[in-house]
Amino acid sequence: MSELRVGVVGVGIMGADHAERVARQTSGARLVAVSDPDTARAEALAARLSGTAGASGAAGFGGAPGNGPVRVINDPLELIAAADVDAVILASPGFAHAEQLFACLEHGKPVLCEKPLTMDAASALQVVEAEHKVGRQLIQVGFMRRFDPEYAELKQLLDSGELGRTLLLHNVHRNQSAPPGFRSEMIVRDSMVHEVDIARWLLDAEITQITVQAPKPSSLVDDGVRDPQLAVFQLANGTMADVEVFVNFQVGYEVRCEAVAERGSATIGLGSGVFTRADGQWGGAMPADFRVRFARAYDIEVQRWVDATVRGEIDGPTAWDGYAAAAVCEAGIESLTSGRPVDVTLADKDEVLG
Amino acid sequence: MSELRVGVVGVGIMGADHAERVARQTSGARLVAVSDPDTARAEALAARLSGTAGASGAAGFGGAPGNGPVRVINDPLELIAAADVDAVILASPGFAHAEQLFACLEHGKPVLCEKPLTMDAASALQVVEAEHKVGRQLIQVGFMRRFDPEYAELKQLLDSGELGRTLLLHNVHRNQSAPPGFRSEMIVRDSMVHEVDIARWLLDAEITQITVQAPKPSSLVDDGVRDPQLAVFQLANGTMADVEVFVNFQVGYEVRCEAVAERGSATIGLGSGVFTRADGQWGGAMPADFRVRFARAYDIEVQRWVDATVRGEIDGPTAWDGYAAAAVCEAGIESLTSGRPVDVTLADKDEVLG
Amino acid sequence: MSELRVGVVGVGIMGADHAERVARQTSGARLVAVSDPDTARAEALAARLSGTAGASGAAGFGGAPGNGPVRVINDPLELIAAADVDAVILASPGFAHAEQLFACLEHGKPVLCEKPLTMDAASALQVVEAEHKVGRQLIQVGFMRRFDPEYAELKQLLDSGELGRTLLLHNVHRNQSAPPGFRSEMIVRDSMVHEVDIARWLLDAEITQITVQAPKPSSLVDDGVRDPQLAVFQLANGTMADVEVFVNFQVGYEVRCEAVAERGSATIGLGSGVFTRADGQWGGAMPADFRVRFARAYDIEVQRWVDATVRGEIDGPTAWDGYAAAAVCEAGIESLTSGRPVDVTLADKDEVLG
Amino acid sequence: MSELRVGVVGVGIMGADHAERVARQTSGARLVAVSDPDTARAEALAARLSGTAGASGAAGFGGAPGNGPVRVINDPLELIAAADVDAVILASPGFAHAEQLFACLEHGKPVLCEKPLTMDAASALQVVEAEHKVGRQLIQVGFMRRFDPEYAELKQLLDSGELGRTLLLHNVHRNQSAPPGFRSEMIVRDSMVHEVDIARWLLDAEITQITVQAPKPSSLVDDGVRDPQLAVFQLANGTMADVEVFVNFQVGYEVRCEAVAERGSATIGLGSGVFTRADGQWGGAMPADFRVRFARAYDIEVQRWVDATVRGEIDGPTAWDGYAAAAVCEAGIESLTSGRPVDVTLADKDEVLG
Repeated sequence: MSELRVGVVGVGIMGADHAERVARQTSGARLVAVSDPDTARAEALAARLSGTAGASGAAGFGGAPGNGPVRVINDPLELIAAADVDAVILASPGFAHAEQLFACLEHGKPVLCEKPLTMDAASALQVVEAEHKVGRQLIQVGFMRRFDPEYAELKQLLDSGELGRTLLLHNVHRNQSAPPGFRSEMIVRDSMVHEVDIARWLLDAEITQITVQAPKPSSLVDDGVRDPQLAVFQLANGTMADVEVFVNFQVGYEVRCEAVAERGSATIGLGSGVFTRADGQWGGAMPADFRVRFARAYDIEVQRWVDATVRGEIDGPTAWDGYAAAAVCEAGIESLTSGRPVDVTLADKDEVLG
Repeated sequence: MSELRVGVVGVGIMGADHAERVARQTSGARLVAVSDPDTARAEALAARLSGTAGASGAAGFGGAPGNGPVRVINDPLELIAAADVDAVILASPGFAHAEQLFACLEHGKPVLCEKPLTMDAASALQVVEAEHKVGRQLIQVGFMRRFDPEYAELKQLLDSGELGRTLLLHNVHRNQSAPPGFRSEMIVRDSMVHEVDIARWLLDAEITQITVQAPKPSSLVDDGVRDPQLAVFQLANGTMADVEVFVNFQVGYEVRCEAVAERGSATIGLGSGVFTRADGQWGGAMPADFRVRFARAYDIEVQRWVDATVRGEIDGPTAWDGYAAAAVCEAGIESLTSGRPVDVTLADKDEVLG
Repeated sequence: MSELRVGVVGVGIMGADHAERVARQTSGARLVAVSDPDTARAEALAARLSGTAGASGAAGFGGAPGNGPVRVINDPLELIAAADVDAVILASPGFAHAEQLFACLEHGKPVLCEKPLTMDAASALQVVEAEHKVGRQLIQVGFMRRFDPEYAELKQLLDSGELGRTLLLHNVHRNQSAPPGFRSEMIVRDSMVHEVDIARWLLDAEITQITVQAPKPSSLVDDGVRDPQLAVFQLANGTMADVEVFVNFQVGYEVRCEAVAERGSATIGLGSGVFTRADGQWGGAMPADFRVRFARAYDIEVQRWVDATVRGEIDGPTAWDGYAAAAVCEAGIESLTSGRPVDVTLADKDEVLG
Repeated sequence: MSELRVGVVGVGIMGADHAERVARQTSGARLVAVSDPDTARAEALAARLSGTAGASGAAGFGGAPGNGPVRVINDPLELIAAADVDAVILASPGFAHAEQLFACLEHGKPVLCEKPLTMDAASALQVVEAEHKVGRQLIQVGFMRRFDPEYAELKQLLDSGELGRTLLLHNVHRNQSAPPGFRSEMIVRDSMVHEVDIARWLLDAEITQITVQAPKPSSLVDDGVRDPQLAVFQLANGTMADVEVFVNFQVGYEVRCEAVAERGSATIGLGSGVFTRADGQWGGAMPADFRVRFARAYDIEVQRWVDATVRGEIDGPTAWDGYAAAAVCEAGIESLTSGRPVDVTLADKDEVLG
């Protein structure tokens, strides 16, 4: 057996995303089962992601080539226990996590658990202890920002010591608007929790003190909700961090983090990689070559070529495009010698391909 | 059979990249064979990418989980003909393309051919005609910029008509330094060819005239090489484009494209998505939500979780990280009420996990 | 006599701007006379800029403190000849320049002449020759971009040789919209002429060849007008430059210039000083200290303080603002020691100032 | 008497800057006297800024054309009392301010007082009360940021209500390095005081609470100095502000301010005017026309033309530059018609001007 067989518990927005990610984009893994209290939603997703096609076959459009069948298991604990489920992604509501995590530990199933781990510190500590008793780490928490290329590059820069010791972080975390019923505590627990993890990870220490204050709320926020909020963290190694969380910012989604170090600062979230202020300059790094700059383009090109080829199609530049480019380049080389305009005459496309 | 079985011809820098991409990152495809005149290089790559692991197995580090074995076939034509090769990636030198493309057409094998299609317009046209005779499109050319998210977004913006009709393009294409022996004509044929394709694609017309001029070359360039070069294209629909190609720019790799339209302009390659000047404003779009902003983070998170899980490891935030975050959030909610600092006390990590 | 007495010929938009600049913002100069075919316009301007006030006087609002009286002289040649006019600013239409310049030369009056010098090369050469016969340079042409801090910094950077020899320039010159009747040739003569001067100045050589092409025009342009235009210059020292001029860009006014040199490039007109790509980095320079960053703020502060003081007013932060700042800082120092919030209590403002 | 006669008390770095500003760049004002405990320094400055030249005269290089003589008055109180001093700029050390301000009030002299008003809240309040008794506002405090074009534009944007009500401010205030002996309290009193004023001004309310905390200091800071510092302000109208002050940032000088409002945010200090996030977009405004974009260029052009003309020189583009531009434009218009390169032939410069 050559691939990791994954089951997904909870197929709301995040869970469905993860299921599709496993089925369509993740190499070395296969989606085998999904579970959700809303059975119809689970059935529809399973149908959409079940794939049966091969290169010579006739894949249904919209299927996931090469994934194989996906079945629905109503009971999440049954999914976790299933013999053909090697590993689990938990995207169920936070209050359901504790029980499902204990089940994963019991069956020795590796689990990727969306945050929060559980709803409070006491139960979370119980999970830590239970995993410790199993004697093997099985639980990963879904603080996905650590995998964001910009955050990862920032971490690498800070750890390199190039800017000296890191002193403090400024964070901004804004959503266009919060779902109805999103209360003041949820802003801390569901939104600010990301910066809690980022501060611990980037500054490499535990948080020892937190202050959360809030200005008079925006008039666009439900009565009684304190939004935005401004938090200040103290960490065990003497560093600090502040965070603005504003879940009804109206404009769009924005996450920024500026690390201030002894010899400069570095900011991510501006949409331009790691933006530094160091050595009397502001700016960023130029990519060294095209493979860095166009890495995603190559990934997408090959993935789409594979998918189209399985369907018996072309989904990209054709042979004609290659021919037209060759003809222009020939004329260009002639013009380079003369310094004068050179006309390009292509074969008649309709005649050639008609 | 559920996956596309791919063979790669030519495993220099680009070919090896593509082979690894298929083996490790592309869903629905498997690398089955590689071919290269340098047999040792091919053998080493095949060994590195052959994967045999499953979730419960003990994958060798550096293998490609779930890929299966990769074999070396010395003769590229034999690889193309092999029964277990469903599709081919051609990353051999340009002069070898014509023969190999004809072989792919003969065996009905879909092929992703790195640019150039062939070395001149006449032979490229023969390839187009030969494919046409097969009666089915099998050839895709490796103009991968069309798959770059920024170029794709630019194309979409221009096609939307939001900025009015597109009038002209300004392009900049710079490399840190060219390999030894990179001559003036190669700047046109191997570098500028990308802008040739981009201009045809974005402006949606064939190029009818080209002028290439060059200033006195940089003193850092080999004698007789005209670098940088400045080209101007006229297109059949009355649009124009200019391109600076500078393959010895020293600083790094840089590709920019600004499209000028009737009601504004849009630039990509600044590292910040599509940068527009329209409606009296300069700037870009805010992402609507976290799934857009962190799409790659989620992809990487899940891929790395799958890979680590197959190895029996955790490669991300642990249960302790989940617990620590929960404890800080509890204190934060308390501080939000009081507006005063609240200390955070965690369980003793050594004691819990010792 | 301690100040340069200036007369302005032509008080349309540019001339009125210049007249006001001399009367209100230029140290060491005084506006004494204006001339315009539209006498009413000249009279209104003269009245507005005539200043008589002193510190203890009661300056009329809107006057120019310290400027003294401004008179209208209908005949421009009479203004140029006037004994109390030390120097002339010519902001009349281009076709009137030749005669007025010859008058300035005849009377030995220094003149700042808005571009164009004259309407064609032949008459411009006659002006050059006439000035040469006078034996002293009296004419300055209004290519004001050379005085723009960004262009000046770019020139300094290129001349420093830090980026190696300059190879080529890319220029963009866009207006929101052109005035009615602005024809294709005027785009060259009145707009592109700025880049002609900038290319000669930055690249330090004469232009030896020019190519101007144009795509199919924007549909928002009058019939028969070729807008935008794309020009390529060759210079005597082997450098090159290109220019897009687009006088109906709709979005706003935009002037950019990127200089490409052997070891990097530098761009101005992005609104962030000189933006460089060099040494593997993109970015700009941090200001060394507050006097650089806030130079204009200090200039404006002092000019506005002088103007308000002459009027017997305060136009800036008051003593109360100084007091309130002192009180907050005292509390801040206390908080720094304790790490806890400190309340700030000010005296009752109404009671103190009531 | 047509100009404000200004005396400057204290001619260290800031005072000398202000003295030069008044003598050379400020219209409607004249520097008449300076005072400093370091008499030699005062004498040198007075000599440098005394100007006697007129257009037909022979100005000493480095003098201030049109300023007139500047004398040294050793006793600052004597300068303040002098009959020919209409108004005073105080740039003496903070501890000397109280006595000098009382003298200004006594003699009814308008005064621009560098911050701090005085050294503590109690004495500052006494100054406020004394001015109130005079019955006329005479004192302006040197919070010059209010005059910075970026801050002024930010204030205008926030006051317009376009972004909804302002909720909070994030401020960053960094110096390359502090002078020796710059202690923790001075970071609050001399640096953070600017943000104290900015928060009061932009948010239009008094500060009611302040918290100042500090991470473990940078190792590049003197022992015992707490640098950087992080402050949080609460204001009377329910808004908040935070400030990082870091006076040993190494990199350069940096002042940023981001205002977060109900419908978007606006940042200044990025070197690109007011940068907004609003309506789903990030970015800034395009200038409407060249007079906005090149306002400073015109100011500098005219000031330098005046200064050079007084010296009998040209300090800008010459008639030859005007001629060369005309010749290129003629050729450009010809090329526009033909779409082909047109050579430009200038008259022989040596022959014409030789």
